Amino acid sequence: MDIIKPRTLSGFMELLPGKQQKLEKMMEILRNTYALYGFAPLDTPAIEDAQILLAKGGGETEKQIYRFQKGDSDLALRFDLTVPLAKYVALHYNELAFPFRRYQISKVYRGERAQRGRFREFYQADIDIIGDGKLDILNEAEIPAIIYRVFRGFGLKRFQIRVNNRKILNGFYAMQNLSEKSGEIMRTVDKLDKIGADKVCAILIDDCGLSEQQAQEILKFIAITGTNEQVLAALEGYAGQNELFDMGLAELKAVTANLNAFGVPEENFAVDLTIARGLDYYTGTVYETTLLDHPQIGSVCSGGRYDDLAGYYIDKKLPGVGISIGLTRLFYVLDEQGLLNPNLPSAPADALVLPMTEAAAPAISLAEALRSAGLRVQLYAEQKKFKQKMSYCDKLGVPYAVLLGEDELAQGKCSVKDMRSGEQVTLSPQEAAEYIREGLAGSNGPLILE
Amino acid sequence: MDIIKPRTLSGFMELLPGKQQKLEKMMEILRNTYALYGFAPLDTPAIEDAQILLAKGGGETEKQIYRFQKGDSDLALRFDLTVPLAKYVALHYNELAFPFRRYQISKVYRGERAQRGRFREFYQADIDIIGDGKLDILNEAEIPAIIYRVFRGFGLKRFQIRVNNRKILNGFYAMQNLSEKSGEIMRTVDKLDKIGADKVCAILIDDCGLSEQQAQEILKFIAITGTNEQVLAALEGYAGQNELFDMGLAELKAVTANLNAFGVPEENFAVDLTIARGLDYYTGTVYETTLLDHPQIGSVCSGGRYDDLAGYYIDKKLPGVGISIGLTRLFYVLDEQGLLNPNLPSAPADALVLPMTEAAAPAISLAEALRSAGLRVQLYAEQKKFKQKMSYCDKLGVPYAVLLGEDELAQGKCSVKDMRSGEQVTLSPQEAAEYIREGLAGSNGPLILE
Repeated sequence: MDIIKPRTLSGFMELLPGKQQKLEKMMEILRNTYALYGFAPLDTPAIEDAQILLAKGGGETEKQIYRFQKGDSDLALRFDLTVPLAKYVALHYNELAFPFRRYQISKVYRGERAQRGRFREFYQADIDIIGDGKLDILNEAEIPAIIYRVFRGFGLKRFQIRVNNRKILNGFYAMQNLSEKSGEIMRTVDKLDKIGADKVCAILIDDCGLSEQQAQEILKFIAITGTNEQVLAALEGYAGQNELFDMGLAELKAVTANLNAFGVPEENFAVDLTIARGLDYYTGTVYETTLLDHPQIGSVCSGGRYDDLAGYYIDKKLPGVGISIGLTRLFYVLDEQGLLNPNLPSAPADALVLPMTEAAAPAISLAEALRSAGLRVQLYAEQKKFKQKMSYCDKLGVPYAVLLGEDELAQGKCSVKDMRSGEQVTLSPQEAAEYIREGLAGSNGPLILE
Repeated sequence: MDIIKPRTLSGFMELLPGKQQKLEKMMEILRNTYALYGFAPLDTPAIEDAQILLAKGGGETEKQIYRFQKGDSDLALRFDLTVPLAKYVALHYNELAFPFRRYQISKVYRGERAQRGRFREFYQADIDIIGDGKLDILNEAEIPAIIYRVFRGFGLKRFQIRVNNRKILNGFYAMQNLSEKSGEIMRTVDKLDKIGADKVCAILIDDCGLSEQQAQEILKFIAITGTNEQVLAALEGYAGQNELFDMGLAELKAVTANLNAFGVPEENFAVDLTIARGLDYYTGTVYETTLLDHPQIGSVCSGGRYDDLAGYYIDKKLPGVGISIGLTRLFYVLDEQGLLNPNLPSAPADALVLPMTEAAAPAISLAEALRSAGLRVQLYAEQKKFKQKMSYCDKLGVPYAVLLGEDELAQGKCSVKDMRSGEQVTLSPQEAAEYIREGLAGSNGPLILE
């Protein structure tokens, strides 16, 4: 038979079992944390009608999308989880209770030019809260608490949730008579971290056509930093000149006012006036999250408040707030940087049961007893030499080998070998389960290192 | 703005939140059970190189597949999880330890003609154990134990794991000099349940060209029923005539010998000589699982032993054994038949915290305290009348409303209302968490009814 060389397409992540275990752990933390805040899991199809998926149309999206015909149908793979959510909410509007909170952790597809660290298939882990007509500001205030719990759950402490409000930005640009150029200006300001204030100023003047004074006003504005209190105080200085600005300031105050009640420490939160988020549809609070010791990774969790989720599909005003974690990229970068805790268990089993005699039944019963005690157990039945069995256990990284030879059988016991220390003890099945469980508890640690 | 009517493509399952919760629960049970037996989670791309995915080629598969071009690439969506596994094992052969045990719960795609209960996108929940060159029979013997734990985990008792061995069938046909017609015969015998013995006999004679005597021999053989012991005893009567048959019988004995040690009750297991499984690549034990009170659903978990997983991709003999659950279809049918336990909690939250005063902070702190106690809590902050808040709680099916008014605030307590009984008690946050947790524990039950 001719052999076809196996390969996985470039831009598609396919992990070895040990690493996959860690990605699964991240997903479990995400699911559990999102659920704690009352978000319902949702699962929409990966394939949608292309007309519906591209209702908004245009731009980069259209070029990157995987679109194809099947029979008469014009189909496309989803490129984010927001458009399918909009379709879902519009379609099931009468069956849902609002505010509707959902999380979705699913793969999305973008046929980008393949390059290192860029993926064509990647997981997004999204939450959104959708209101019907209105949505209280407290929902926007709650988002940082959720981000905080997620990243603490990953084992991190050195991260910062950076928050701004688009009404403040848009109100400020209106004060400067720069409303029409606000998009352009925000995209330029967004580069501040990368290119510095001087270059931003030059672009504002040369490319955006601002006056020297306008550019200076903008730089002065985005240079406002300090504690939340200090930034809010500085913003008060602009109050009373523009209604939108004042609304934004009130919202920002509401978002920062309850951080303490939400359990978000001051050091993990900052009002940052340079945050704008590229997307046009954000209208209120916007969020970015950075790992303080790894700023080059960029924002690992972003989102914001929007006023019109599903206007393309339904004649209802559905405002919402949401965040998204680009899980595949985050995982890839953490792995590249060696930040995935190598000491966390990554084996598919907690124990490998090794029958050392001809009789299979006692080893099977032992394995089942350990499983019933909640342990993940593999029964290793292959006819191999002892050394090969041990080397299999080692290669998989299974922390305990459980041996069942003539002596153990005669005593109704088993020998448990701790593969890391080499220590071996003879115990009853019940004692063995307890011994292994205690040993495993000691090997818990953060998923991500700092 | 023109509105595009939202729709979900036909043949694609998209559930409302309450149902999705139940599907998630099924997936959690599958993940946990598979993990108990030492299977590693795996996640392969949904898109593969079409040449690789179709290496085996031909037949129905090719017609049903979603295949498309992107740039120069000839791509296709996976139509099962076995071909991607074969590719994965061949590609990562040197990095894996064998036997390699993996589970994968992922969506697969088949562009079949849409019809009720048929899906174009559906979850498969697969496990496979892959050996390098050899694989001990004990792995085949373990599969019924895993199936048993999965379906018991779903809450079922009235199901039967039916087992046969392809070597027994092929050996038997060889004895009858019918090896060349064995495929045809097995496909006919497979219809026994549906069309009865007389029609099977007629087809064997008229269409397959068997003699009356040959057809009678086959009917006599597949009529062997009874306890495992009785069936094995009857099979002994054919022993010593064909080597393959004898091997199969020895394997079948090994698979049935340890059921007790594996904890599989006799009533949930049957040797059934009519089971053949359509696919050519099965070479040993084959499995089907039926719900005894719902035989019309057909097999809900099937699979078998094969000798050559990845011959298209690698010059190695990689035998294996695996089973697959067509999760989306199973879920759909259970739902259709009203077998998903309606009393199981399907709300996105265990408790809805309702601030009844202007001050948000105490309600936020209370919600966070309940979350830290492990409860799923939604803070309901919308400015609505009390009646509307209660009706929201009801519509979501959240079992507890936690009210925080002036009186409660003054006492440092909260009022917990059991939405089912209407009973209301005033408790400290800690007591409230305990009270809700105890109430929830009482509402556990089987996921699937019988």
